[in-house]
Amino acid sequence: MLSNARVVLVRPHYPGNVGSVARAMSNFGLRQLTLVEPHADVNTLEARRLATHGLHILDAAVTVGTLDDAVADCRVVIGTSGHVEGVFRTHGYGRPEEMLPGLVAALPDGPCALVFGPEPSGLSNVEVARCHGLIRIPTDSANSSLNLSHAVTVCLYELRRAWLAAQGVGTHPTQRIAPFADQERMFARLREALEAVHFVWGTKGDALFHAVRHLIARARPSPNEVRILYGLARQLRWVAKHGVSNPPPDPEGPDG
Amino acid sequence: MLSNARVVLVRPHYPGNVGSVARAMSNFGLRQLTLVEPHADVNTLEARRLATHGLHILDAAVTVGTLDDAVADCRVVIGTSGHVEGVFRTHGYGRPEEMLPGLVAALPDGPCALVFGPEPSGLSNVEVARCHGLIRIPTDSANSSLNLSHAVTVCLYELRRAWLAAQGVGTHPTQRIAPFADQERMFARLREALEAVHFVWGTKGDALFHAVRHLIARARPSPNEVRILYGLARQLRWVAKHGVSNPPPDPEGPDG
Repeated sequence: MLSNARVVLVRPHYPGNVGSVARAMSNFGLRQLTLVEPHADVNTLEARRLATHGLHILDAAVTVGTLDDAVADCRVVIGTSGHVEGVFRTHGYGRPEEMLPGLVAALPDGPCALVFGPEPSGLSNVEVARCHGLIRIPTDSANSSLNLSHAVTVCLYELRRAWLAAQGVGTHPTQRIAPFADQERMFARLREALEAVHFVWGTKGDALFHAVRHLIARARPSPNEVRILYGLARQLRWVAKHGVSNPPPDPEGPDG
Repeated sequence: MLSNARVVLVRPHYPGNVGSVARAMSNFGLRQLTLVEPHADVNTLEARRLATHGLHILDAAVTVGTLDDAVADCRVVIGTSGHVEGVFRTHGYGRPEEMLPGLVAALPDGPCALVFGPEPSGLSNVEVARCHGLIRIPTDSANSSLNLSHAVTVCLYELRRAWLAAQGVGTHPTQRIAPFADQERMFARLREALEAVHFVWGTKGDALFHAVRHLIARARPSPNEVRILYGLARQLRWVAKHGVSNPPPDPEGPDG
């Protein structure tokens, strides 16, 4: 089941770090490694030497052009950051042991991703905002900059710990979660609709929509819930254009 | 207080690993690094480069001839091993989160040590027997051999976690959740608004609103998020009554 957990490295710089990450993935039972626009050449001797028994993971790594491509089929996408900013400042982030049980619970539904940023700078604010949640590893305030493979190791150790803990517990009926790409399409239509009714507008518009988006994403919406929100977006656009005195667009309701 | 926790590396082979360990120690707030009969030369460029902000720890590392010398002043000495043997087979060993709270509890009394063996083979049985307890990090059975600096990172992460827990940090959820009564009032206004824009209506209305309500409640909305949804409800009622050609009711946005 941990094979459904994916490690996504965004623009990794150092081949040795990518090799070390592959080794740590092998240690904790993961297989799917995806590289987004890697600067590091994973075919170097250093990367292959540091991968050791994780060499098969390094060799099978998938390279893509954007973070969205890397996680399009993922149910839950959790980012990592040394500093918590923007939309995640007040909520939606936490320590590894707070965030990873939720990811483990979603693994039966399909792939889930842990996303790590480039060594010098970490994930951009735009990339962080794409994630459903954010992990911050507690460190000494004097030096919070973890080596990339160390950050991955801590998260995978906690992921395996959460997974082992979940084994002992009786299985609860888990809810199916809509794929990331379906959620994204719905969020795009929802934003258009909230702009059409003048709820999202002006300089505060981005922050406001991020808050709405994050609230919904945190609930891990099911495919049916995503359809309902599509229906809401459609109805709001209709009302903005025609007013409420006209009949609704679809007498079968929002699922029609 | 974590400055009383010491990392002891027994016969480390690779300079890069020793440098990486110094960096991880800096990340998690430790300072005391002791090397027993090191094969690795810590003055190499690789060791110093990988230490980054932990360079002062690497420079202050103490070199001794035996494990006993390294831990002579320590109150608690915990070893690490990929396989559990001999005296620890039946008791005295455990996962990091089982063993480290005991070490944290002893830190006020004086130095305590975490002991790691050489990369190829780990601690000898004789060395393991010197320890008061033994940590085994849970790994995939197919590849239990962690990189040395990764093993140290996992243990120091858990050490800091145990230390924070002992201080009462992290016992409360990081996210504030709006009181139930506040959520209920918001849901009542939201339902009125969704009825006003003809999204919730007819025989399916109850089920549809219940789905929306359940989605939002599942995310455990914060007080600020409840305020945002209030604002959404107000704006939808305004649009239903006046249409979108009129200016929004409050130029300060939904929180105003």
